[in-house]
Amino acid sequence: MDTDRLNGDGAGGSRAEESAAGVDRRPIVGVVGLGAMGRGIVQNLLQKGYSVVGHDINPQALAWLKDQGASVACDAGDLACRTRMVVSFVVDNRQTDEVLFGAFGLAQALRPGALLIACSTMSPRYLQGLEERLSWSGVELLDAPVTGGMVGARQGTLTVMVGGPATRLERARPVLSTFAGRIVHLGDLPGAGARMKVINQLLCGVHIVAAAEALALAQSQGLRLETTLDVLYSGAASSWMLGDRGPRMVQGAFSEVTSAVDIFVKDLALVVEAAQAVNAETPLAQAALHTFRLASAHGWGALDDSAVLRVLTSDR
Amino acid sequence: MDTDRLNGDGAGGSRAEESAAGVDRRPIVGVVGLGAMGRGIVQNLLQKGYSVVGHDINPQALAWLKDQGASVACDAGDLACRTRMVVSFVVDNRQTDEVLFGAFGLAQALRPGALLIACSTMSPRYLQGLEERLSWSGVELLDAPVTGGMVGARQGTLTVMVGGPATRLERARPVLSTFAGRIVHLGDLPGAGARMKVINQLLCGVHIVAAAEALALAQSQGLRLETTLDVLYSGAASSWMLGDRGPRMVQGAFSEVTSAVDIFVKDLALVVEAAQAVNAETPLAQAALHTFRLASAHGWGALDDSAVLRVLTSDR
Repeated sequence: MDTDRLNGDGAGGSRAEESAAGVDRRPIVGVVGLGAMGRGIVQNLLQKGYSVVGHDINPQALAWLKDQGASVACDAGDLACRTRMVVSFVVDNRQTDEVLFGAFGLAQALRPGALLIACSTMSPRYLQGLEERLSWSGVELLDAPVTGGMVGARQGTLTVMVGGPATRLERARPVLSTFAGRIVHLGDLPGAGARMKVINQLLCGVHIVAAAEALALAQSQGLRLETTLDVLYSGAASSWMLGDRGPRMVQGAFSEVTSAVDIFVKDLALVVEAAQAVNAETPLAQAALHTFRLASAHGWGALDDSAVLRVLTSDR
Repeated sequence: MDTDRLNGDGAGGSRAEESAAGVDRRPIVGVVGLGAMGRGIVQNLLQKGYSVVGHDINPQALAWLKDQGASVACDAGDLACRTRMVVSFVVDNRQTDEVLFGAFGLAQALRPGALLIACSTMSPRYLQGLEERLSWSGVELLDAPVTGGMVGARQGTLTVMVGGPATRLERARPVLSTFAGRIVHLGDLPGAGARMKVINQLLCGVHIVAAAEALALAQSQGLRLETTLDVLYSGAASSWMLGDRGPRMVQGAFSEVTSAVDIFVKDLALVVEAAQAVNAETPLAQAALHTFRLASAHGWGALDDSAVLRVLTSDR
C-alpha cells in the first residue's frame, strides 16, 4: 500500500510496526457523503486497513462515523491536510457542487495532486465540466460510479464503472478494491463511467416499477403476494430488483429506506435527459420516471423506492 | 409410474420386463404443439422413460419428432386411443381452440377421463370457459402454464403454475416432473395458473424491452455493447431476460428464434386486458406492448423477440 500517495503528511512506514507503537499510521482516505452507500464503503475501508476521515452535513451520520472508529473532518482544510484521496458518495451533481465549491469548499482546500473519486450518479456532461473546474485547483478527478446497491456496498462486491486516465485508476485501485468486486475501465475521459451508470439506472428504475406493477396486478387478481414473488423470482421474470425490492413491497416495509423514491426521480430524469441529447427513445424509462414522480407528488419521495408500489395499488 | 392412467389401452405391466421382450410398453404421453418449448418437453419425456405421440400442423416439426424416436399421431382419434394424457404447448387460445374443437377435433376424440395439461399462455377467462366446454366430453383440464424459457424447457427446470383440483395435479405430476424444476399449486380452479402466468409475462415483456432500451441508448452514447452488457449484468441492473436476450441483441442474432416478437404482442395484450378487467394501471406493460407492436408493424413479428431492439435503434 503506497501510503505516501494517500496521506497528506507524506509519512510512510509499515503499518504493523507503527500500530504496535500505538500510533495510527494506517493510510487515510477521505469519504464525503455518509448515506447508505457511503457507510458501506467506510466499513469496508476500515475493515481492510484504512483510516477514514469523513464529512456529511447530517450530524447523525457524523455520530455514526465516530462510532465506527473513524474521524470527522472539522472542515475542508482539516480533511485536505489529512489525505490526498477523497471518495465522494453524495447524492448528485448539486451536492457534489456544494461540497466542492459551496460553503464546505473542498475543491480549494485539496492540495494539487489530490485525487477525487466521484462515485455519485451524475450526468456525463456535469462530469466533463467538473474535470475542467477541478483542474484549476490541480485536483485530479476519477469518474467512478458504482452498481450493486447497498448490499454490494456492505459486502464489498460493487461494480465500479471508471472514466479517467489509467494512471488515476491505478492510484485509486487499492481503495476501490476495498468495496468493489469488479472495476471496469470504460474510457480515459471522465464521463464514460457516468454514461454507463445512466444506462444502469435506466434498467434499475424500470425494473423496480415493473416489480411494483406485477405485484399490484397480482394483488388485484387475488393472488397471494408471497407465492407470486416466489414464482416470479424462480423463472424468466426474475431481476435483481425483484429479489431486492420485491420482499419490501410484499411487506409494505417502505420506511426502511435503502434508496429513496426521489433518488430515482433524479436518476431517471438523467436517463431521459441523456436519451434526448442523442435523440434516443426510452418509452419505459419515461413511464417509470412518470410513476416515480407520481409517488413523489403523493408525498412519498423520502420513503424507500419500493413505495412506488403505492402509486399502482388502491390500498395506500 | 401408473401406466394404466396414462395409456389408452389400459395395459399395465412392468416397463423393464416388457422392454426386455422388445415390446415398447413405456407409458405414452401426447404432446401437441412442437415449437421451441414443446420440443424441449418431448426431449425430457423421452429421456425420462416416456413414449411420446405428437401432433403439430407444421410438417417440419413432425419430421423432427420422428427423428427423436417419437411417433406422429395420424389424427386425433389415433392420439386419443394411444394415451389418456395430453400436454399442450401450442401458442395461444386460438390454437388451443383449433386443436380441440377445430378440424383436428381432439376434444371429441379424447376419452372421458383423459387429462389435458394446458401449458400455453392463455387468458384466465378463456381457461375458465375451457374447463366447462371440456367437461361436456368428460375431459379433465389442468391449467399449467410454465416459466423458464426455452432454456428451462431443454434443461427440465421450468416452473409450472398450476390451477386445478389437487387430484388432477397429482395425476399429472410425474409427467410435469420430467420438465419442471418446480411445480406450484395456486388454486383448485383452472385460471389460477393463467393469472400467475399473465403477471409473469408482464415482467418478461417489460424486461426484454428494457434491455433493448438500455442497449440502444448505450450504443447512441458510444459505449461498447459487449462491455455494457457485461457491466449491466454484473450488478443491480441485471435480469434473467438481460442475460438471455442481451447477447442476442448485441450480436443482432434476430433470426435464431426462441420466442417471436408476436408472442409478446399477444402476451402483453393479455396483461393489459387482465389489468383493465380489474381497473389496474400497468404503464410499463402498455409501453412495452406498444414497442412490440411497432416491431410487428415493421414486419419483424416472426423474428426473435430480441429484435424489438430495432424499434429503438437507428441502424436497422
